[in-house]
Amino acid sequence: MAKNDQQFVKEIADIESDFPQWYTDVVLKTKLVDYGPVKGTMVIRPYGYAIWENIQREMDARFKAAGVENAYFPLLIPMSFMTKEAEHVEGFAPEVAVVTHAGGEKLAEPLVVRPTSETIIGHMFGKWIESWRDLPLRQNQWCNVMRWEKTTRPFLRTSEFLWQEGHSVYASGEEAEKETLAMLRLYEEFAKNVLCMPVLTGRKTEKEKFAGAVATYGMEAMMHDGKSLQSGTTHYMGQNFAQAFGVQFTDKDGALKYGYTMSYGVSTRLIGALIMTHGDQRGLVLPPPVAPVQVVIVPIAMKKPGVLEATHALKETLENAGIRVKLDDTDNSPGWKFNEWEMKGVPLRIELGPRDIEAGKMLLFRRDICEKQEAALGDVKAVNELLAEISEKMYIKAKERMHSRIVNANSLEELLAGVNGGNFVRAGWCGERACEDKVKEFAQATARVMDDHHTAEACLCCGKKAKHTVFFARAY
Amino acid sequence: MAKNDQQFVKEIADIESDFPQWYTDVVLKTKLVDYGPVKGTMVIRPYGYAIWENIQREMDARFKAAGVENAYFPLLIPMSFMTKEAEHVEGFAPEVAVVTHAGGEKLAEPLVVRPTSETIIGHMFGKWIESWRDLPLRQNQWCNVMRWEKTTRPFLRTSEFLWQEGHSVYASGEEAEKETLAMLRLYEEFAKNVLCMPVLTGRKTEKEKFAGAVATYGMEAMMHDGKSLQSGTTHYMGQNFAQAFGVQFTDKDGALKYGYTMSYGVSTRLIGALIMTHGDQRGLVLPPPVAPVQVVIVPIAMKKPGVLEATHALKETLENAGIRVKLDDTDNSPGWKFNEWEMKGVPLRIELGPRDIEAGKMLLFRRDICEKQEAALGDVKAVNELLAEISEKMYIKAKERMHSRIVNANSLEELLAGVNGGNFVRAGWCGERACEDKVKEFAQATARVMDDHHTAEACLCCGKKAKHTVFFARAY
Repeated sequence: MAKNDQQFVKEIADIESDFPQWYTDVVLKTKLVDYGPVKGTMVIRPYGYAIWENIQREMDARFKAAGVENAYFPLLIPMSFMTKEAEHVEGFAPEVAVVTHAGGEKLAEPLVVRPTSETIIGHMFGKWIESWRDLPLRQNQWCNVMRWEKTTRPFLRTSEFLWQEGHSVYASGEEAEKETLAMLRLYEEFAKNVLCMPVLTGRKTEKEKFAGAVATYGMEAMMHDGKSLQSGTTHYMGQNFAQAFGVQFTDKDGALKYGYTMSYGVSTRLIGALIMTHGDQRGLVLPPPVAPVQVVIVPIAMKKPGVLEATHALKETLENAGIRVKLDDTDNSPGWKFNEWEMKGVPLRIELGPRDIEAGKMLLFRRDICEKQEAALGDVKAVNELLAEISEKMYIKAKERMHSRIVNANSLEELLAGVNGGNFVRAGWCGERACEDKVKEFAQATARVMDDHHTAEACLCCGKKAKHTVFFARAY
Repeated sequence: MAKNDQQFVKEIADIESDFPQWYTDVVLKTKLVDYGPVKGTMVIRPYGYAIWENIQREMDARFKAAGVENAYFPLLIPMSFMTKEAEHVEGFAPEVAVVTHAGGEKLAEPLVVRPTSETIIGHMFGKWIESWRDLPLRQNQWCNVMRWEKTTRPFLRTSEFLWQEGHSVYASGEEAEKETLAMLRLYEEFAKNVLCMPVLTGRKTEKEKFAGAVATYGMEAMMHDGKSLQSGTTHYMGQNFAQAFGVQFTDKDGALKYGYTMSYGVSTRLIGALIMTHGDQRGLVLPPPVAPVQVVIVPIAMKKPGVLEATHALKETLENAGIRVKLDDTDNSPGWKFNEWEMKGVPLRIELGPRDIEAGKMLLFRRDICEKQEAALGDVKAVNELLAEISEKMYIKAKERMHSRIVNANSLEELLAGVNGGNFVRAGWCGERACEDKVKEFAQATARVMDDHHTAEACLCCGKKAKHTVFFARAY
């Protein structure tokens, strides 16, 4: 542990030896989130919600550019809808919260608080679509969903969370599959350019796919402890939901046909992902594109004449350039402020005192590598370039780290050693569920995604010819 | 009915003789909304949701400028929370939806789907606030809420709706009351400048106030049929919720004191408000600041050389100026397109054909007054000025209409005649609940807000000295 980090030890658990406690300390102490009164729920506090707003804005712009429209579908779904798609009900029924009473009366049919909306959106799409002219139909909603989980952690797994869920209907399976992969690419680009987070993408195994899908694709990110966090998924449904909900259209040839559907979603879990990808012993390290505060200005010798005026002027200059700026002119000491804003992960700190002002300079502290450099006072271009460089370096650092921790395995023992060492493990797999289950049992690791770019020869478990190359990892 | 309007009669019920059916026809046919599968729920379709996004963006910018921070609190509230504030539970208990089962088990304590969040936010504020330094605390959330209503109508009253709810705690009652009025002013300014909608604002009577509030203030808008729609409310809670949920702080003098709270909200009901304020026989008339499409371009003689190119170039020019533009290059006839986009309330239509292009002109059709004028082709300034003029004229027209339909009454009979004539009725009131009830019974009218600017002498009901001047109206 570096000497500078010792002062933080009092507040935040050690990131190497107790990562779970580090995570809890960081999310609570930086006021990103708090526990709600009902077990398993979270309150997203302003500092955390501002990250979510930035994620929403960036993601929503991408959806709109891709031609997807936003809508809003009801929270409560008739229980009977859930049972129309056999795999879907099997997957979600154990997790749902159920409204049985409303308006002072017992309801004739219980209503499910949406765990996801394929069913109710399928029902509405079936009502709206008449002919091939209505296709494709591509809608998205930003909303809350609920899945009653036994073990919960803020952002990572909570009974209620916020997300977006996109749903599209196409006339052909090819088009729907193409969109399923296109949205996976969109998520990957978003992870890279907005969260500065490298991911592995690929198809999920049958065991790990969405309940009711023909195929699920996922993006997986490596957390600080080497575990994987599923950070976004896209699903190709074939005609499963279209048949269950009567999503039919009259095709150009006059025949009535079922549509092909797909869906895709990311959630407030992304906030957990970026915390555990970039955080360090001092606390959060937020990517500039989503940081609620990109630059914090700390006045030095604040009472000296001209200092406060200069910091206010600097704030205005940076804000006018579209930078999110906070001026900390509270009575706390500069040292206290440094600690506070470093813990809160602000990408760039500017220190400005009488000598700097006199010299026409400002001191810039980069949170990502904890180093200082100088720039001319009020040099917006330097600040913008530095923010861009921080984003790039954060991505490269995380990517190099992830790739340095991908190992190959030819046996269960090698896989166990790999995941014990905090690695993702690439291995051959025969495609049989029995071998996948054995990996889980032997090493508490699961198949995260299948790797299309690499061909292993034999199944790490049974030794038979490999059908797929798989990234295995322990996962959140 | 004007001759031009006859073609619309087939599609939309007559606005004068059957306003309720007109409303239903308009919201369904323009695809703003649809009925959800559960009785009383609505699906907000893309054209309706885009209006909500514009409302959110405009309102949220105002909140942020005022220093309010966004957060997110859980959907499910322990039933025991509801009962901590006596008036609150009495008001909301009959309307709540209740989750009794989750994760396959019966819950130890039933959970209420939030009808509003004073209770759970009070609980969290109580946890977070320690000293006077933490005050004021001002947070807002954009979310869904649920109130199980017997009679529902899309946007106006649905079991689930979307809204924002702002909640603040202050150290003194004076500050909290000041904020209650400041937010009412913010809503009024928003109604005027964003929805082009005049409102009456003022304090609500005891009977009409929020369950648990010391005082409620509301803004009321006059709909086409002369009925009133409550379009936003702000509430001063005194210490009612602070005491119920332990919202305490250590003051500068070292004493532990309860805070003073207030809250404020507007909802998707605003969409209903603008439809029923501005709509006409042809359908929607959308205010430019919230219209999803501000300008629709309809090519004339679309197959002629150069026409499509010119319309695309015009679209790009306007979009680059920040205008929301739709180019309708479908195969439908221009006449069909005119009808469609008039029904959908697009503020400005641009018609562009070979002759216009040759002459370097474009034809502009104003939806608000259904009149045409010319401008130079691609004249962005002319378009922006016209959009601003439309906004202004829509407000003035609605305001003049509202003020021309406010009448005074000195007796129940005069009040009945007034509301029967589709008016708001200004009258004196002694302040007694019995007289307020009698007005309701006699004329099916309720006290909307109290008028501070006007002093009536006697109660219209009992004839005793008036304590307040009240606007009475039939209301949605």
